[in-house]
Amino acid sequence: MKKGFNVTPYEVEGNIDYGKLIREFGLEKINENVLKKIERHAGELHFMLRRGVVFAHRDLNWVLNEYEKGNKFFLYTGCGPSGPIHLGNLQMWVFTKWLQDKFNVDLWFQFTDDEKFLFKNKSYEEIQKWTYENILDVIALGLDSKKTHFLIDTKHAGIMYPEAVKIAKKITFSTIKASFGFTDSNNIGSIFYTSMQAVPAILPSVLKKKNIPCLIPLGVDQDPHFRIARDVYPKLGFHKPAIMHKIMFPPLKGIGGAMSSSKNAVIITSTDSPREVEHKIKKYAFSGGQKTTLEHRKKGGNPDVDVSYQYLKMFFEPDDKKLQQIHDDYKSGRLLTGELKEILIEKINAFLKEHQRKRELAKNKIDDFLFKP
Amino acid sequence: MKKGFNVTPYEVEGNIDYGKLIREFGLEKINENVLKKIERHAGELHFMLRRGVVFAHRDLNWVLNEYEKGNKFFLYTGCGPSGPIHLGNLQMWVFTKWLQDKFNVDLWFQFTDDEKFLFKNKSYEEIQKWTYENILDVIALGLDSKKTHFLIDTKHAGIMYPEAVKIAKKITFSTIKASFGFTDSNNIGSIFYTSMQAVPAILPSVLKKKNIPCLIPLGVDQDPHFRIARDVYPKLGFHKPAIMHKIMFPPLKGIGGAMSSSKNAVIITSTDSPREVEHKIKKYAFSGGQKTTLEHRKKGGNPDVDVSYQYLKMFFEPDDKKLQQIHDDYKSGRLLTGELKEILIEKINAFLKEHQRKRELAKNKIDDFLFKP
Repeated sequence: MKKGFNVTPYEVEGNIDYGKLIREFGLEKINENVLKKIERHAGELHFMLRRGVVFAHRDLNWVLNEYEKGNKFFLYTGCGPSGPIHLGNLQMWVFTKWLQDKFNVDLWFQFTDDEKFLFKNKSYEEIQKWTYENILDVIALGLDSKKTHFLIDTKHAGIMYPEAVKIAKKITFSTIKASFGFTDSNNIGSIFYTSMQAVPAILPSVLKKKNIPCLIPLGVDQDPHFRIARDVYPKLGFHKPAIMHKIMFPPLKGIGGAMSSSKNAVIITSTDSPREVEHKIKKYAFSGGQKTTLEHRKKGGNPDVDVSYQYLKMFFEPDDKKLQQIHDDYKSGRLLTGELKEILIEKINAFLKEHQRKRELAKNKIDDFLFKP
Repeated sequence: MKKGFNVTPYEVEGNIDYGKLIREFGLEKINENVLKKIERHAGELHFMLRRGVVFAHRDLNWVLNEYEKGNKFFLYTGCGPSGPIHLGNLQMWVFTKWLQDKFNVDLWFQFTDDEKFLFKNKSYEEIQKWTYENILDVIALGLDSKKTHFLIDTKHAGIMYPEAVKIAKKITFSTIKASFGFTDSNNIGSIFYTSMQAVPAILPSVLKKKNIPCLIPLGVDQDPHFRIARDVYPKLGFHKPAIMHKIMFPPLKGIGGAMSSSKNAVIITSTDSPREVEHKIKKYAFSGGQKTTLEHRKKGGNPDVDVSYQYLKMFFEPDDKKLQQIHDDYKSGRLLTGELKEILIEKINAFLKEHQRKRELAKNKIDDFLFKP
């Protein structure tokens, strides 16, 4: 926390300066050029791209150039199953599904149950329960089972572990320490784990005996895993995967850190009822408004720090014009915080209603999605 | 090497003081009481037990008491496939087979191909080749495939890795450092590995959902893996496995250290021809004899340091009377070093002739031995 914020897969704290993060992590900012390239193939730009929610990348130009040459990439993203799915997870996956649909590519989806077991004070059985629950949420996104392959680390260890040891052989504990802030008190499974997370980026290439480009959309906190692994892949004869980085989804109480199911923070989960959503937003969503209605009408609110506005911008209001109107109305004081929250509550509940319906249907579909070696 | 010798799974050096090792490792010496107990069930005592080749144990009384109560143990031992099988390996397994035969129990045999890949400067493919080769040697021992189950770490990772992470969660890198002398420069696979070696001791219990006692015959250099793991098993609800420790098989050039396929030492391998065996023994086997025949006749030889005599004692002359005669003849000077070597060469070649015959037949039997989950 020396620099005021900290972003690793195991700790996200403070007010993240994303410009600084780009420099520190050695990322590239997503610029107009690369956006145009995406738009050329996708036919449109997802609002998360337009609005800088997906803000940085590694080797995205390369993977798009390959795509242009007819060398399709596959997508790889994942989920660490240790609790209920929250809006931050869903946001990432909604974007991932968009990529899959627009580029018509396979998606490999990893459930890192080993990781969560190794890092959390939870039993193996509890993690398995969450793996099942989270799988339902991923299927509920409406993914096509023919093009989507689920890997569950402990269930697919038979094909993953042999590749993981090849990666692990080229990573020292010094590197792990420097990247994740681990100490000698870390358990030896947690130290090994990054090599399991590295596997899906090459597994399709291994299985098809063919070097296939990979694109990983992820929350930027996951980048350290691949910063390490990208040094290793070429040594094993594989391409470095391209990466697209999403900013952290802010917690309800304010825009520092990230929404997380693990820190007893108030989060909105995929199974929350409309009343729970309403209650949480009304009670906890940090407001950029003034203390009194009178003052708000006069001075206006600050959408940049208002969590409700940020949720609309990052996830729930795809329409740029409508969003701009909300922004301007809030800033001018025309729109009160309570009214802004009502807009958001309605949006979230509409989303979750449909999600929960599909989540029920997902219970019969799990087997279709599990990768069969 | 501060204490004059060093014994870990990754380094065996110096003249090992086994009395000191017993104290340092916290082992129990195999005494008359436990020998009687073994004899009661086995009907006899293997010469390696009578002669202190298998010299120490952990919880052997417990596992034998359980056996007496009708609660059978299973055996677990293994092989690290990084090169040809040598006499030291065969010695361990001949004893293990004896245990299996006499107690009529299952044997789980682990091939630690992941370990050897992670620790050796050899390719994955090379290790796979040695795994195949070494499997032939193990089958050639004449094991019963109905009671013997091979686990190959990378092939059986599907059932092993989930158990390994449960073990790994309870072992810190500090413990690994202290036990194996690792540093931050170790690769993260090597750090994790001990949890894979720990798995077979509980895997049958996991699979049968029943806590089954386990007895591990091993070379004493492997003890550190289980010294760590034995602290973990009870936390997961399993018995601590019992262990029987064999002294290290001495290298040809002298009784310090251990025969190993990895240090460019001259070793006798399972596929050596009679001429190779003869050449190696004659040229390299350290002699306890005197410099000249005349001097030898007068002063006699020293069987305690003579490698040929030690090989006979430890492995190739089961008959106590014959061995005593050789001992006395050599000590008195009646038997010359050249003659002693001839006795050994004949014994080894007879053993290897039969072994190599069975090794050829083993090629069609591999599948019978691989564990099918």
